[in-house]
Amino acid sequence: MTRTKILAGLASFSVALAVPWWTVPQESAPAPAAAAARDTATDDPASPDAPDPHAAMDWKAMDKEMAKRDKSFPAKTKGTGAQPLAPKILADGTKQFTLTAQNIKWEVEPGKTVDAMAYNGQIPGPAIRVDVGDRVRVILKNELRESTVIHWHGIPVTNKMDGVANVTQDPVPPGKSFTYDITASRQSVGWFHSHHDGVKQVTSGLWGTFQIGDLPLPGNVKPDKEIPFSLQDSGALGLTFNGKSFPATAPVRLKKGQSLLVHYYNAGDMPHPMHLHGLDQLVVAKDGFPLEDPYKADTILIAPGERYSVLIKADQLGTWSWHCHILSHSESSKGMTGMFTELIVT
Amino acid sequence: MTRTKILAGLASFSVALAVPWWTVPQESAPAPAAAAARDTATDDPASPDAPDPHAAMDWKAMDKEMAKRDKSFPAKTKGTGAQPLAPKILADGTKQFTLTAQNIKWEVEPGKTVDAMAYNGQIPGPAIRVDVGDRVRVILKNELRESTVIHWHGIPVTNKMDGVANVTQDPVPPGKSFTYDITASRQSVGWFHSHHDGVKQVTSGLWGTFQIGDLPLPGNVKPDKEIPFSLQDSGALGLTFNGKSFPATAPVRLKKGQSLLVHYYNAGDMPHPMHLHGLDQLVVAKDGFPLEDPYKADTILIAPGERYSVLIKADQLGTWSWHCHILSHSESSKGMTGMFTELIVT
Amino acid sequence: MTRTKILAGLASFSVALAVPWWTVPQESAPAPAAAAARDTATDDPASPDAPDPHAAMDWKAMDKEMAKRDKSFPAKTKGTGAQPLAPKILADGTKQFTLTAQNIKWEVEPGKTVDAMAYNGQIPGPAIRVDVGDRVRVILKNELRESTVIHWHGIPVTNKMDGVANVTQDPVPPGKSFTYDITASRQSVGWFHSHHDGVKQVTSGLWGTFQIGDLPLPGNVKPDKEIPFSLQDSGALGLTFNGKSFPATAPVRLKKGQSLLVHYYNAGDMPHPMHLHGLDQLVVAKDGFPLEDPYKADTILIAPGERYSVLIKADQLGTWSWHCHILSHSESSKGMTGMFTELIVT
Repeated sequence: MTRTKILAGLASFSVALAVPWWTVPQESAPAPAAAAARDTATDDPASPDAPDPHAAMDWKAMDKEMAKRDKSFPAKTKGTGAQPLAPKILADGTKQFTLTAQNIKWEVEPGKTVDAMAYNGQIPGPAIRVDVGDRVRVILKNELRESTVIHWHGIPVTNKMDGVANVTQDPVPPGKSFTYDITASRQSVGWFHSHHDGVKQVTSGLWGTFQIGDLPLPGNVKPDKEIPFSLQDSGALGLTFNGKSFPATAPVRLKKGQSLLVHYYNAGDMPHPMHLHGLDQLVVAKDGFPLEDPYKADTILIAPGERYSVLIKADQLGTWSWHCHILSHSESSKGMTGMFTELIVT
Repeated sequence: MTRTKILAGLASFSVALAVPWWTVPQESAPAPAAAAARDTATDDPASPDAPDPHAAMDWKAMDKEMAKRDKSFPAKTKGTGAQPLAPKILADGTKQFTLTAQNIKWEVEPGKTVDAMAYNGQIPGPAIRVDVGDRVRVILKNELRESTVIHWHGIPVTNKMDGVANVTQDPVPPGKSFTYDITASRQSVGWFHSHHDGVKQVTSGLWGTFQIGDLPLPGNVKPDKEIPFSLQDSGALGLTFNGKSFPATAPVRLKKGQSLLVHYYNAGDMPHPMHLHGLDQLVVAKDGFPLEDPYKADTILIAPGERYSVLIKADQLGTWSWHCHILSHSESSKGMTGMFTELIVT
Repeated sequence: MTRTKILAGLASFSVALAVPWWTVPQESAPAPAAAAARDTATDDPASPDAPDPHAAMDWKAMDKEMAKRDKSFPAKTKGTGAQPLAPKILADGTKQFTLTAQNIKWEVEPGKTVDAMAYNGQIPGPAIRVDVGDRVRVILKNELRESTVIHWHGIPVTNKMDGVANVTQDPVPPGKSFTYDITASRQSVGWFHSHHDGVKQVTSGLWGTFQIGDLPLPGNVKPDKEIPFSLQDSGALGLTFNGKSFPATAPVRLKKGQSLLVHYYNAGDMPHPMHLHGLDQLVVAKDGFPLEDPYKADTILIAPGERYSVLIKADQLGTWSWHCHILSHSESSKGMTGMFTELIVT
């Protein structure tokens, strides 16, 4: 096999598959020999079925690399996002939260640390949860090297608290603060994010979840576990679940018979169809509004800005894959990648 | 800071954010200095927290540019699409409309005039509205420099009136006409568009809305206002609402307490999640078919060809942002852009 | 008209329309002269309305080329996917199927044969259908030049039968087999596909449909015809319906008054809005789960991994276009392309 033929094989491979850059962890990665071998085998009319020693070695090396990566899950990384944030209770009962926006380094997966932006050092930012009727105050402290604001998506606020730069307020400059006063007037599955150069700031990490009250569930079920599940795909973070890429995504663990309420949030720039293996997803709310007729699905499309709430019953034992079904967002010829995690029922 | 470091910073910035070309209004735009400063600051381990005079200047310049652009809304441009078209009533009661397809220059936003195609000089084309039971005749006059046809999407027609080049009719050559006869057999939220090289002709401007009768609403509500809201993203027009890009998009103005019926039409090539701040969107119809169970949402995904009809109650005062939530379709480091407008309640 | 001006016209044309590579069947395709002429005409202020002989020739040549391509439908190609697969009935009543994965050459459309992967030489793989309660055994024989596995999407299985490489089983190496045992525990509209380097293997052809029982329909309708409709967009196959691109896509033929049950499966990497002209689509199930309130639509968005089942009544005579409404997926300046077919009612 000449070097020219190998290169030709590589060229057609890269065009056909459009392997995204993030599937290649190192610039010095070895050539995708499996693909070259495949093309070579089909190009040789003289021996179409003859065993090709290069091919044999290639798939073994490929499998070994894939298994190594796949079995490194769940990998440890520094930093965890979406941690519950306790309020300071003011004299009049107001629940006060402080969100400090900063430039940080964030470990997306082992070996990939990026220049990110975060509230309170977390990506996603801390998870805020209050009760219906609460008076809420959020102090934004801007310690970034640029201006920012916070918009409350899906949370009823007065217009001057809506947090859109140059529309409802001036941007908050570096070193300054801004106070948002919100009355938690109804049950909501909302979120907050920058609305100043959001295409950069949100995809760099400036978002978090903001829930008001309990989402009412069919049959008044009380879920054993409730989690926010944030999707991101662009900017500094790339393809991530709750700020982390496979193999650093966090698995969810349940005991058989338990129920799980998941709130998907798409904070990115593309729709993602979220597929859970083995267990049904009962869709119970859209953007925090309970559905009159919940419906079952195994794959749920969540577009940027949308939230879907789903109820899952852990009625089957095992390790169930949970991933975006845009295949290039979760798989690669080097193993699982990006938007892949597991739900483990024991 | 050396020039080499600045350029390196810019290079990584452009890769990470993939700023689309349409966010840069001029080829002579100044370098994105804020980004360079950010990278420089994080690259300098000797003084991670030291104030950087360049950074300080950069964010101020960036904010100033963004505010200037954001506050230029709503900008005046030449040409308005989707104007109601009055029929000529023929002797037998038939309502006759004439649509003349032409190559035109269209001002998408101040400073951006493109080679477009239009029906009757408008993008979107004129809004046609008839009653259930009407006999309708539409004369297509082709004054383009190429052939065309009109397809009636979501409007029941006989097959020979379906308007697909080389499937149900020959393309109509330059200088020729074609007459479409339609019986308005049922309530519809339809539209019309070219079906001859549609990938070019539709994205150049050759579409319009075609409504039959009133969409029945929950509780027999009569909306105070009813508007078509066309989405486009490709070709000559790029990211536009009703043929215009921010800051030339048209705001919608309501008095407090009024209701608004919006028909979203996606005439483009990508799905768009439409987010309205502050006011709920009650989804009442899909492709013109009334939903048995309308549902609330704050973000609604509309794919190419789809229509969603939503009812909005202006129950909160203020200037509410209204945009595609794919962040790169509505925001940039130079201010709002493309698919962004406002709903103003006074 | 100078050659420089023509080239400039071509350059702006290709930027504006972003014509995908698959619309150009030959590298030696003639220059898109119509576009050049169009730009030239608008660039010439001296004679804006003067007839341009080049333009006149161009649209005629373009129309001729488009008509030739459009009217070549339905074009014959070698190979048909999704053929029903008869089981071998074992002594204990188990239904046994054998799926042999192989590297093959696949004719996507006339003149476009690609290096693909297939089960039993078909793309999509053979259609498996069993009854509720059946015991099912599927033997995967791997005759590829690389490892593979099969995942059963939307089919209840025990975890060790879930078919995810390195999660629930080791990949099956070339030359080896693996046996999947499944109890068909409930009505399902499922499918099967590779879950080992799926981004390559699925888009190369390694998927098929797997249905359990009859989908219950409103009013207990028994459809006259029931078909799987697989969407693909990436990899070796590109934009295809059931493994074929227009003009090799298969039309569906019905007699007036007949009903058709269509199961859409998206096996690709992008969401596709499927539009049928002339006949309503009644959406009756999502991912095989019957909807409590079926709804009508003319355009249905199906994301990767999702299935939508729709019921169609052939109540209008004619040749109805049926296509993805992302215009660049079904149309081009050379005629229909990719994801376009027809439903013909006689």
